[in-house]
Amino acid sequence: MAPHKAPDSSRRSDRSRRAIYDAALALVGESGYRRTTIEGIAARAGVGKQTIYRWWPSKAAVLMEAFLDLAARAAEEAAPQTGGTGGHADGTDPQAGAAEYGIPDTGDLAADLKLVLRATVDELNDPLMEAPTRALTAEGIVDAKLGAEFVEKLLDPQLALYVTRLRAAQEAGQLRPDADPRIALELLIAPLTHRWLLRTLPLTHAYADTIVDYALGGLAPRS
Amino acid sequence: MAPHKAPDSSRRSDRSRRAIYDAALALVGESGYRRTTIEGIAARAGVGKQTIYRWWPSKAAVLMEAFLDLAARAAEEAAPQTGGTGGHADGTDPQAGAAEYGIPDTGDLAADLKLVLRATVDELNDPLMEAPTRALTAEGIVDAKLGAEFVEKLLDPQLALYVTRLRAAQEAGQLRPDADPRIALELLIAPLTHRWLLRTLPLTHAYADTIVDYALGGLAPRS
Repeated sequence: MAPHKAPDSSRRSDRSRRAIYDAALALVGESGYRRTTIEGIAARAGVGKQTIYRWWPSKAAVLMEAFLDLAARAAEEAAPQTGGTGGHADGTDPQAGAAEYGIPDTGDLAADLKLVLRATVDELNDPLMEAPTRALTAEGIVDAKLGAEFVEKLLDPQLALYVTRLRAAQEAGQLRPDADPRIALELLIAPLTHRWLLRTLPLTHAYADTIVDYALGGLAPRS
Repeated sequence: MAPHKAPDSSRRSDRSRRAIYDAALALVGESGYRRTTIEGIAARAGVGKQTIYRWWPSKAAVLMEAFLDLAARAAEEAAPQTGGTGGHADGTDPQAGAAEYGIPDTGDLAADLKLVLRATVDELNDPLMEAPTRALTAEGIVDAKLGAEFVEKLLDPQLALYVTRLRAAQEAGQLRPDADPRIALELLIAPLTHRWLLRTLPLTHAYADTIVDYALGGLAPRS
């Protein structure tokens, strides 16, 4: 409410915010989306439920932000080498989603994509991400409204980074001039999501590299 | 139990079996996997629950078979032109999964893949399939044991058809000699699954065609 918060009140808020994120992610991972409640999150975080209602309009909003924060932390852990492209060095900005990190452009499209897809493999395999990501994805699959919200706020900003990088590649003559970058990116990321969600086969760096090689080079022989 | 059933008893069994499948799919689509029970399926199908326990060891087993049957029916509706490659003309065999239809081999890999992926698009967009497929996929994402069972019994047999067709293409010189067919197929089917599960953008025949063209031709320019 006050335009200038006293420093200790702001620190207290940061601590509460972190506790609420952690509680929300833990509960959704343990009990699923539907059985997670604002009351339950408040109790586990040790705050009053009015504290949560003051900051967020709904359970979905708390989880969305908790999830953006988790993705930012996992991305920093998984790929410290890309931390210089827009991330926050101290890792404490709750708004710093993975999307802020961008996709590097070294001029070598295959190498840049492998770097990013390997980092994605590490994020997906991070035990901290596993249960809450699965719970939210599963709920979005059956609840169209929630699914659309997660796609809009979490997935689309990440896909936009691929579009940007692939357009740059197109201008540099490294991507077919007739390829639609928005579709092209699906050949790169969908196989990783498919393996992870359905647990068909192990999701490894070697797999990420192979997907990039097959997608760029094509499955048909080059004569 | 009897080695030779009387014809009318067998017809009655077929009717009950069909009613049980329909009830199981309707309930899982309406209430989700966890809230669907053997008792609920029996009540909706108008049979005693002992009838279900006599034929299936578990709820998962009923649903698996109901789902195989549904996939077979959807595949027949979506792709009558492939019905001659192994399907049952009368469509009544409960064991006739989509996997039995195979992938045609006309010698033109791109055309054959487009035919099959367009049929997959139609199956995924079939309103009959929508709710139960989403409910089962969502449950498999959070329940590793159930997920593994569905992959083994429903997904893997279908993926094996792609491996067979891609191996034939490799022998015919239409697939890179160094490509692993088991990985190559993921570039083809994962984008469709991704669009359908996450509802990112419309899942159309044109999209299926584009995925085949990009995957076979590659995203990098051919010189």
